Amino acid sequence: MADDQHWTTAITEIKPNEVRLRGYRIDELMARVSFADAIFLALMGELPAPGVSRLLDAMLVASIDHGATPPSALAARTAASTGAPLNAAVAAGVLSINRHHGGAIEDCMGVINEAYALAEANDLSLEVAAAGLVALYRKDKKRMAGFGHRVHTADPRTARLFALAEEAGVAGRGMAMLRALEAALAADTGRRLPINVDGAIAAVLFDLGVPPALANAFFIMARVPGLVAHVHEEQTRERPMRRIHPSDHVYDGPAARELPDGR
Amino acid sequence: MADDQHWTTAITEIKPNEVRLRGYRIDELMARVSFADAIFLALMGELPAPGVSRLLDAMLVASIDHGATPPSALAARTAASTGAPLNAAVAAGVLSINRHHGGAIEDCMGVINEAYALAEANDLSLEVAAAGLVALYRKDKKRMAGFGHRVHTADPRTARLFALAEEAGVAGRGMAMLRALEAALAADTGRRLPINVDGAIAAVLFDLGVPPALANAFFIMARVPGLVAHVHEEQTRERPMRRIHPSDHVYDGPAARELPDGR
Amino acid sequence: MADDQHWTTAITEIKPNEVRLRGYRIDELMARVSFADAIFLALMGELPAPGVSRLLDAMLVASIDHGATPPSALAARTAASTGAPLNAAVAAGVLSINRHHGGAIEDCMGVINEAYALAEANDLSLEVAAAGLVALYRKDKKRMAGFGHRVHTADPRTARLFALAEEAGVAGRGMAMLRALEAALAADTGRRLPINVDGAIAAVLFDLGVPPALANAFFIMARVPGLVAHVHEEQTRERPMRRIHPSDHVYDGPAARELPDGR
Amino acid sequence: MADDQHWTTAITEIKPNEVRLRGYRIDELMARVSFADAIFLALMGELPAPGVSRLLDAMLVASIDHGATPPSALAARTAASTGAPLNAAVAAGVLSINRHHGGAIEDCMGVINEAYALAEANDLSLEVAAAGLVALYRKDKKRMAGFGHRVHTADPRTARLFALAEEAGVAGRGMAMLRALEAALAADTGRRLPINVDGAIAAVLFDLGVPPALANAFFIMARVPGLVAHVHEEQTRERPMRRIHPSDHVYDGPAARELPDGR
Repeated sequence: MADDQHWTTAITEIKPNEVRLRGYRIDELMARVSFADAIFLALMGELPAPGVSRLLDAMLVASIDHGATPPSALAARTAASTGAPLNAAVAAGVLSINRHHGGAIEDCMGVINEAYALAEANDLSLEVAAAGLVALYRKDKKRMAGFGHRVHTADPRTARLFALAEEAGVAGRGMAMLRALEAALAADTGRRLPINVDGAIAAVLFDLGVPPALANAFFIMARVPGLVAHVHEEQTRERPMRRIHPSDHVYDGPAARELPDGR
Repeated sequence: MADDQHWTTAITEIKPNEVRLRGYRIDELMARVSFADAIFLALMGELPAPGVSRLLDAMLVASIDHGATPPSALAARTAASTGAPLNAAVAAGVLSINRHHGGAIEDCMGVINEAYALAEANDLSLEVAAAGLVALYRKDKKRMAGFGHRVHTADPRTARLFALAEEAGVAGRGMAMLRALEAALAADTGRRLPINVDGAIAAVLFDLGVPPALANAFFIMARVPGLVAHVHEEQTRERPMRRIHPSDHVYDGPAARELPDGR
Repeated sequence: MADDQHWTTAITEIKPNEVRLRGYRIDELMARVSFADAIFLALMGELPAPGVSRLLDAMLVASIDHGATPPSALAARTAASTGAPLNAAVAAGVLSINRHHGGAIEDCMGVINEAYALAEANDLSLEVAAAGLVALYRKDKKRMAGFGHRVHTADPRTARLFALAEEAGVAGRGMAMLRALEAALAADTGRRLPINVDGAIAAVLFDLGVPPALANAFFIMARVPGLVAHVHEEQTRERPMRRIHPSDHVYDGPAARELPDGR
Repeated sequence: MADDQHWTTAITEIKPNEVRLRGYRIDELMARVSFADAIFLALMGELPAPGVSRLLDAMLVASIDHGATPPSALAARTAASTGAPLNAAVAAGVLSINRHHGGAIEDCMGVINEAYALAEANDLSLEVAAAGLVALYRKDKKRMAGFGHRVHTADPRTARLFALAEEAGVAGRGMAMLRALEAALAADTGRRLPINVDGAIAAVLFDLGVPPALANAFFIMARVPGLVAHVHEEQTRERPMRRIHPSDHVYDGPAARELPDGR
């Protein structure tokens, strides 16, 4: 063939009886790092700092599921209800994770970047830049991604994630700016519009050096197990072709319980 | 409406400022269990036994990526190369995980179940049942899922997974039967056809009580991060609409390296 | 490379300034055959008999849309509502066309084949074979694909399709057996369970020599334009992330009207 | 529920034994309009003018397939090769129709709109506006969608489509501007960069009043049958999990032939 199709990849090296992810033997990784660490390695090319492992786990656990109303769960259940195999139903769910569902993470990283660009261009303090960006958004009637939630006014996931980020020594410029924006929004509107879990994840990813183009990937990877659970529940508990009401459902699983000691 | 569309779900309960996965507060889970543990909880309804966490991590790490030749990676890259957004390209990859790619895990769980059914129906020892099933498969010219690999003759992932399963006290009837089948295959054919990573995962899932219908889900959940890495690499390193050769590529990532001490 | 990857395809030949579908120049086809004819040519390798063109058009028109309640429309709208691009939303819809939605066409072709197999194995007349199969299905408590509809008791699409098939000289063994089965079902149950549009299409495809493996493809190809219409309507008339009720909607389009003369 | 989820749709009205697409009875449409006409009706809300039917057929036939090298065909075959059901493999193909494959139609409609905007804003003739836009694109080093092809220098589909558009009395401002741009490009570069089939379709859609947001839908709807043909061929002619070379294949279907008289 005239056109050379030879190409290269920097993710995984395969030799007989040897698989290396970003240079590390996969069987060594299996023994010594968590799945969350390996995800970070696969995407970023390097392992996270040791103290960061628990934060990564927490970030992924935070997004694993949010009940049956999100459109990704409904699309996956709708496909499953027609007899789709599990992978196809999960794919229908993944196709429903876009700008308006999951996309706030990337958008909020963009907001943080915008605020820093404003600060740098005009030599402003973080607080002044945050207030300036809030004013610009109000003028353009744009909603600022990462704040507010239709169900939660004080999202427990946000507080936990920030606490873990501080423990891990990761809390940096991303979190600082997001908090400045939260304060500026409150000052501007006269009411508190709290940081939501998407905003919290955006700040943590920013502080971990993850590029915005991978932001939504963290949501997708975290939510796929939740989609699997919904598809499996649909396949095992419901009759085919039922009409799936988007909100008229209640939880009937295990009662509220506390984690056992030692976990 | 005449037809009642009210329904129930046992996965996640959502209240204002409270999210509970299978009864546990998500912010408590974030602080105290790993992503792998939370995946098991989401799918199975209960947390794994404490000693099993590392095994789950290892099982998911084992399947995170296998280079650029698997069809799921190629389909995801092909979609990405046309300008698909990340989630759509990942979905195209997930749609390429089926019976012939990833499906060996479920099939091998079926083989283990068949062997035990044979043993029970005829009151046979494990070894005799294994030999009997191997003979049946040979007679029907069927390939037995879970054995052999086109690249690896001694898959390092298999050995590691079995070692971790033994450490965790999980090694049970699934692993025992799979090893009996391996021995029976060798006796039957006169050459060793080793347990591959799909077989090893099948045995571990069997011993963890995971139903076969969820077997491939573990492969899908594990591989999605690998697909994300391929899509991101395609988007950042390659020109759009290149012709993607399915095998003429080489690894150019970090050189072979060992994990640092302390990990 | 050791393994030869050279392969062949019998669909389309591409040369500079020349595209041939199954041997015919595409620009000649453009001038002289309909889209429905070209679909038949692409799938079956030969053009349909000239009198069949209108029947093919009618079969595809019959399935183009069935309102907003089918799961394929709901899945496509759900994805669109999150901001999915049109192709991804349509793909989510296509993923929701499976055994329980669209799949009755292939299943009904299977029923017709079963009935003929029964007739041939036992040297039975068509009527006796039909009655025998109905009895077998009743004994096994299986529902027979192709009969009954949750909305329509006398589906206008069935009557029209059969009339056009007769005009086209296509009505043959498929239609004859399906009618025999309808009569046998009525005799067996004491009430009429009419042939539905899936059954009618199955009979016509059978009589056109289309293999069952392509049966659902005709439904998919016909329904994709309907899915496009739903996605576009969702994108242009609805706000993002609305909760999409699966049945609480009404039609507000053009009032009932008749086709103008001359069409 | 507090939030009202009642909604409306203007596509199809379903009553017992009555299905109406945009107001017309589907059984009447089946008898009297082509699939291409019904597609136009479903998407645009009105039937095309009677003389336009053949042009619509031709536009859809033009895009039905372009051999085995387009990424949509390769992605669909890759999924099929792993054992995906037909609809899932077709969905993987649809997910590979994006900006760089199929997207030129919408982009070229954008170019035509840009050129007219330039003409109107500056009160320019069509030729001067075209030359101005070509100069702007050259300055910004942007490629103009709708011109040039990697295989065809005189695409037979373009000539045929334009001839049919003229016959149908559809050739209007879209075609005029595209031809002016072609002339301006030739004058600017000193060599002919001909209108490709995407450009031709864009001009025709423009002249038919189809909004750019639906442009790629016409390509998707037209190509789905081609994807079905590729998936079915993969399933019936090839072994699972083969490595699918993106270009090393040859056509082995029916020899070049002419349409029989009377078609």
